[in-house]
Amino acid sequence: MEQLQVIKIGGNIIDDEQALAGFVNIFANVTGKKILVHGGGKLATRLAEQAGIPQQMVDGRRITDAETLKIVTMVYAGYINKTIVAALQAKDCNALGLSGADGNIISAHKRINAAHDYGFVGDIDAVNTKSLHQLLAHFDTLVIAPITHDGKGQLLNTNADTIAQELAQALSTAFNVQLIYCFEKAGVLRDVADDSSCINSITPAEFQQLKADNIISAGMLPKLHNAFEALNKGISAVTIGNAMKLDQLISRQSGTTIVL
Amino acid sequence: MEQLQVIKIGGNIIDDEQALAGFVNIFANVTGKKILVHGGGKLATRLAEQAGIPQQMVDGRRITDAETLKIVTMVYAGYINKTIVAALQAKDCNALGLSGADGNIISAHKRINAAHDYGFVGDIDAVNTKSLHQLLAHFDTLVIAPITHDGKGQLLNTNADTIAQELAQALSTAFNVQLIYCFEKAGVLRDVADDSSCINSITPAEFQQLKADNIISAGMLPKLHNAFEALNKGISAVTIGNAMKLDQLISRQSGTTIVL
Repeated sequence: MEQLQVIKIGGNIIDDEQALAGFVNIFANVTGKKILVHGGGKLATRLAEQAGIPQQMVDGRRITDAETLKIVTMVYAGYINKTIVAALQAKDCNALGLSGADGNIISAHKRINAAHDYGFVGDIDAVNTKSLHQLLAHFDTLVIAPITHDGKGQLLNTNADTIAQELAQALSTAFNVQLIYCFEKAGVLRDVADDSSCINSITPAEFQQLKADNIISAGMLPKLHNAFEALNKGISAVTIGNAMKLDQLISRQSGTTIVL
Repeated sequence: MEQLQVIKIGGNIIDDEQALAGFVNIFANVTGKKILVHGGGKLATRLAEQAGIPQQMVDGRRITDAETLKIVTMVYAGYINKTIVAALQAKDCNALGLSGADGNIISAHKRINAAHDYGFVGDIDAVNTKSLHQLLAHFDTLVIAPITHDGKGQLLNTNADTIAQELAQALSTAFNVQLIYCFEKAGVLRDVADDSSCINSITPAEFQQLKADNIISAGMLPKLHNAFEALNKGISAVTIGNAMKLDQLISRQSGTTIVL
C-alpha cells in the first residue's frame, strides 16, 4: 500500500511565525502523500478579546458560543489555513487547504453533554474517504483546519488531535498510514522540563506503568489515548515529537513511537 | 462541450443572512458543474474598525495593508467561504471551498501603480486550469474566495468580479462557459431606481451608445467592460441580474445578457 503521512501541528508552533516558517520548509519536502492538520493557536483568543467576546472555560475547555465559532472559523479555516497553503506553494508544494465541510470530508454533531453545554463543538461522525481519495489522487498535500460541519449547515469547532486520528484511521484501509503529532517538545518526556528524558517507545503495558507512576503529564494523556486507539484501528505507527525534527519523526529516529 | 456556470455573487447579498440563504438554496439546485465566486461584504470593514485598523481609501478603493489583508483572508476565505460551503452541504450539494492559493488555482502579483500603493492587492497572472479540471472532475461545485497568492508565500486581496471573469475565460477552452454576475438589482438599468427599466441585451454598439448617453452607472461600467472582454476571449454568454432569479438568468429569461 502507498504511504500516507498524517501530521498534526500544534498551536505553539503556529503562534511563532519563525517556527511555523521553519516547519513549513521541512513539511514541504516530505515526499509522497501527506495531510497536515493544524490547530488554532492564540490568535482566535486575542481576536475574541478585541471584539469583547467573553471566553468561558469549563474544565479547561473553551466554550464555543456563536460569536467564538465565527472567530475560530475565520482564524483556523481562513488565516492560518491559507497562510500555510501559500507558504507551501512558495516551496512548490501544491497544497489544497480544506475544512471538514469542504467535500463533506468530516461530518460531526454538536457535542451532547448533560452537565455542560460546550456550544458549537463537534464530535466526529464520519470521514468521507471517497472525497479524500479523489483529492489525494491529484493533490499530494492536503492542509486541514479543525472546523467540521453537521450536514445541516452548522459549522463546528473540533479538536485537531482527534481530526488527525480519525483521518488516519479512515484512510488506513487504502494507505499505509503513519500518524505524527508534532509540537515543541522532543516527545513524551519522563521529566517535562528535560527534552533529553524523551521516551523512545511506549507499549500499552508501559503506558499503564507510566500512568501508575504519574510520569505522563495531563496534557499528554489524551494524545496517548488517541495514539493507542488509532493503532488498534489499523494505523501502522504513531509518533509524537518535535516539529523541527519532522524528518526524524517520520524515520522514527526521534520522538516517542507508540507501539502495540 | 460540457456546460459550466461561473457565478459571481455580490457583497450586498452576502451581508444579508436571509438573502444569502435564499440564494444558496437556488444555487444548490443548479444542475451540472458550477463555480461560485463570492465577494466580501461589510464584515471585514466592521472587524477592521473593531480592531482599530484605519481603513484608507484611494479613488474609492480600499488600501489593503498587512493587517487588513489578515482580516479579509479570515473573513473571505474563512467565515464567508465555509458558511456558504456548509449551507450547500446541507442541500446535498457537495461543494469544495477554495482560495486562489489552494491547488495554486489563481496566481497573481502585487499591483504596481506609480501613483498609489494599493497594498496587498493582487492582479491575476494565471489560472491553473490543470488543477481546476482535476477538481471539477470529481466535484461539481467549487466556491472560490477572492484571495489569491503570488507564488512566493504572499496572499493577495483580489477583485471578485475579475476572478469570475478570468476563471470563465480560462475554463472556456474545455467547457461551454456561461458567466453570470448576480447582485440585488434586476440587471443593467436605464433608471437605477427602477428595476423594470432593465435592458434585456447589450451589444458592443449599444454599449457605446448607452455610455455616450450617460445611462450606465459608474459602478456598472467595470462589470460591462469585464463582460465584453470575457466574450471576446471565448465565453459563450455573460448575464447580469438579480441573484434571486438565478435560474432565469441561466436560461436568459431575466437580467441583462451581453452579446457580441
